[in-house]
Amino acid sequence: MNGAEALIDTLYKAGVRVCFANPGTSEMQLVAAIDKHPDMRGVLGLFEGVVTGAADGYGRMADAPAATLLHLGPGFGNGAANLHNARRGHSPIVNIVGDHATYHREFDAPLTSDVEGAARPFSNWVKTSASADALAVDGAEAVAEAMRYPGAVATLIAPANFAWEDAKGAAEPAPRRAVPQADETIVAKAAAALKTGEPSALFLGGMALREDALNEAGRIAEATGARILCETFATRLQRGEGRVPVERLPYFGEMAADYLNGLKKIIFIGAKPPVAFFAYPGKPGWLSPEDAETIELADARIDALSTLRTLADTLGAPKTHSKAQQKFTPPPMSGKLDPAGVAAALAELCPDDAVIVDEAATAGLAMFPMTGGMARHDWLMLTGGSIGFGLPAGVGAAIACPDRKVICLQADGSAMYTVQALWTMAREKLDVTTVIFNNASYAILNIELARVGASNPGPKALSLLDLSNPMIDWVELSHGMGVPAVRAKTAEEFRAALKEALEIKGPRLVEADLRG
Amino acid sequence: MNGAEALIDTLYKAGVRVCFANPGTSEMQLVAAIDKHPDMRGVLGLFEGVVTGAADGYGRMADAPAATLLHLGPGFGNGAANLHNARRGHSPIVNIVGDHATYHREFDAPLTSDVEGAARPFSNWVKTSASADALAVDGAEAVAEAMRYPGAVATLIAPANFAWEDAKGAAEPAPRRAVPQADETIVAKAAAALKTGEPSALFLGGMALREDALNEAGRIAEATGARILCETFATRLQRGEGRVPVERLPYFGEMAADYLNGLKKIIFIGAKPPVAFFAYPGKPGWLSPEDAETIELADARIDALSTLRTLADTLGAPKTHSKAQQKFTPPPMSGKLDPAGVAAALAELCPDDAVIVDEAATAGLAMFPMTGGMARHDWLMLTGGSIGFGLPAGVGAAIACPDRKVICLQADGSAMYTVQALWTMAREKLDVTTVIFNNASYAILNIELARVGASNPGPKALSLLDLSNPMIDWVELSHGMGVPAVRAKTAEEFRAALKEALEIKGPRLVEADLRG
Repeated sequence: MNGAEALIDTLYKAGVRVCFANPGTSEMQLVAAIDKHPDMRGVLGLFEGVVTGAADGYGRMADAPAATLLHLGPGFGNGAANLHNARRGHSPIVNIVGDHATYHREFDAPLTSDVEGAARPFSNWVKTSASADALAVDGAEAVAEAMRYPGAVATLIAPANFAWEDAKGAAEPAPRRAVPQADETIVAKAAAALKTGEPSALFLGGMALREDALNEAGRIAEATGARILCETFATRLQRGEGRVPVERLPYFGEMAADYLNGLKKIIFIGAKPPVAFFAYPGKPGWLSPEDAETIELADARIDALSTLRTLADTLGAPKTHSKAQQKFTPPPMSGKLDPAGVAAALAELCPDDAVIVDEAATAGLAMFPMTGGMARHDWLMLTGGSIGFGLPAGVGAAIACPDRKVICLQADGSAMYTVQALWTMAREKLDVTTVIFNNASYAILNIELARVGASNPGPKALSLLDLSNPMIDWVELSHGMGVPAVRAKTAEEFRAALKEALEIKGPRLVEADLRG
Repeated sequence: MNGAEALIDTLYKAGVRVCFANPGTSEMQLVAAIDKHPDMRGVLGLFEGVVTGAADGYGRMADAPAATLLHLGPGFGNGAANLHNARRGHSPIVNIVGDHATYHREFDAPLTSDVEGAARPFSNWVKTSASADALAVDGAEAVAEAMRYPGAVATLIAPANFAWEDAKGAAEPAPRRAVPQADETIVAKAAAALKTGEPSALFLGGMALREDALNEAGRIAEATGARILCETFATRLQRGEGRVPVERLPYFGEMAADYLNGLKKIIFIGAKPPVAFFAYPGKPGWLSPEDAETIELADARIDALSTLRTLADTLGAPKTHSKAQQKFTPPPMSGKLDPAGVAAALAELCPDDAVIVDEAATAGLAMFPMTGGMARHDWLMLTGGSIGFGLPAGVGAAIACPDRKVICLQADGSAMYTVQALWTMAREKLDVTTVIFNNASYAILNIELARVGASNPGPKALSLLDLSNPMIDWVELSHGMGVPAVRAKTAEEFRAALKEALEIKGPRLVEADLRG
């Protein structure tokens, strides 16, 4: 057994079932080891951003890490943006990055770079293995670090010679890291704040947005009248019919500050106090009202479910609550397609337990409010703000949940960053329906240009935010990568196309042409 | 005038004419400043790898830096792979990376990351500006550092508030860095070695591969009988009819070692002694013969032209030489298309002064030897080994040289990494002919798998190196991004398609279907 085989065997024993791969020469032994392992699945992405984004989507839905296989420093770089999103979302991932054989580094061959340096800004944990035997031991540690509640990005750098040298064999899984619990005195403080009867809110993120935790939040709301809010960009929000509904904080800072205005007590569980996504001249960065008491009860790494349950019990909240979302379907739309038409069709047609991957940007503003009462689902968001997340995350979610429909709500500009994900959907026959919101623009940036104070933009500025010259033909792009596709220009056409896509099992793309 | 305007004005005054941009909110002031500047050109790329690769292609052909506009740490990450190639090729680039306003960093907003940390492994010079006034001064330094002979990757990080705050105005260009000259004693040593009459070679790279430097090499060859060799992956080789021909070192280490076998004296100018691209079990890393004297006369940062001229004069070489390449056109091919058929058509049809961007990988092995006698041209190669270079570099070369035909020889697997470059070719109506070598495979990796000792690969390993399921339809992909395209399955079809593409002025893609 060589080091690569010992590593892959170790990863499998520790619970890793899939390796999303974009390998090169320095990872060939690892490819051979995946090949040799009877149960480890290998999934090819045609670009590293697809690989890391897929691992993020997988991690969010499986609550267990996939592995990635990346090619030296530049390969890591290509995957960094989606690792940034994963790190911000506390999604579990184990990156395996090949590097030159240790004795080859002195030659400074063309692909030589500082792999650890490249990995560190985008990883929670980084290690370079020091021997063939160390690969397996470090692999077990990497999985344990990736599983650190609720998840983390662990990067293991594997010099090529250790992959092909003899090794003793697989390592035992490393002990699971303990999950920190909330401080009892802060629980008591939060309970006291909620008991004042002043306008209050639970502000939730991370694992506090899963169904079981939301039920505890519902108990608290029942007992105290607190509102239940969440981060603008949450890792995975479980919502829809029968679940406790959550208000989502608006994206733009001043709208978010307005939204929070009037609250006197805000309790944070699984989330930090919200701040503006960017600074703007003369606009606030801190969004909570200045006269509100903000209590950081549990950050994302503290057990959210037990924190909420303890808080509910401390408050003497009833065991049941009346907060469950009722079914609600907006009326069907007709005529020229706009985002509301997309949302109405989705709310009507979405099957039970779908996974919604939301990178719809400005076009998606209508999606969230109009779909709160549709069939129960998981809603995945752009946690790190680094675009190119949606299609790859859809790949990963579909592999984690083969029996659930995945629906990618995808802005056109963002889709182009990692458009190669469509090919993996076709190859793996993934049950993903992709809706492309084609407004032929980085629409958000036209807003942002004005917000930073750059008024009266000329044609050069506008052209840098515009995708209409030439128009991207999403149907042809999708066909070119093997995913059947159709274009819809009216609400009726869109509804029919979405219905068909949701009824078949397999990849399909619907271009929502929003240009009127 | 704000900091962004002062910076853009400074870059222009220092010689920067183009900014390849993929901006986000933190770069909106810079977009507005480009807009306001009467002469700075902005070119949009739909992915940062396109932006940085275009800057690399531009820098190689213009011998002056373009600027890039990148969005925080993840945006830099997306561009890192092509910056790695540029850094390895000593190509001049000035990256401008937006970051959060300085006072916003404490909030740790979702897009916050260690931008300097992300940039350092892929840059020769990194600086974060400390004030609005510093932006212009640092911009002038960044250009001077990027112009450090023969070129370097300089990364300037621009906090958003300094871009919108008032600034004094543009800074004067910084003094050009001195170009180091070769050590006289080593010149004398090289001359003495060449005079021994033993089998010898000039091993050239970087600026030693430009026409004027090669003429000096021709004089030396005339006087001493030395062979003229070059790196496997050179930044920019000027060759073709009337120029001094150069032998290119083979890619695979053992073939390269065989190729150098028998040489007793090797003089390195603009290049380091060659090493294997990767380590392989039991194969050599150092490629020069053990009994050869290797003289490192000038590394890539030492003046190549003056070094070669001084060496030629020291040897008393004649002012002229007889080494100029004669015109040679291989016979036309017919029937099933293979790489030789592509090469024959290219050699016949290539117009004068074309720029060839070579990322053809295994399919390109036939290209170089069969095209040595075609019309004079520049040949750009994958200096850092990080794939996804070709199409973006074609964009940049076409913008640097609007009156020259650019021909991208592009492997299919590599093309997918930065396929968004086709859209920029269409938008800017660039005179680029792209030839996609469609073998539906990472063909090189099938070879590498065996070379690292992984024999008898199974279906899982092979599937991770295969692009045939589904087949990528390059004609549809290209149409989807606005570039007219055609597929050729025979040598005759390919010749006709290439002829038409070279005759029009504008972007065109020809898919060379090599699957037989």
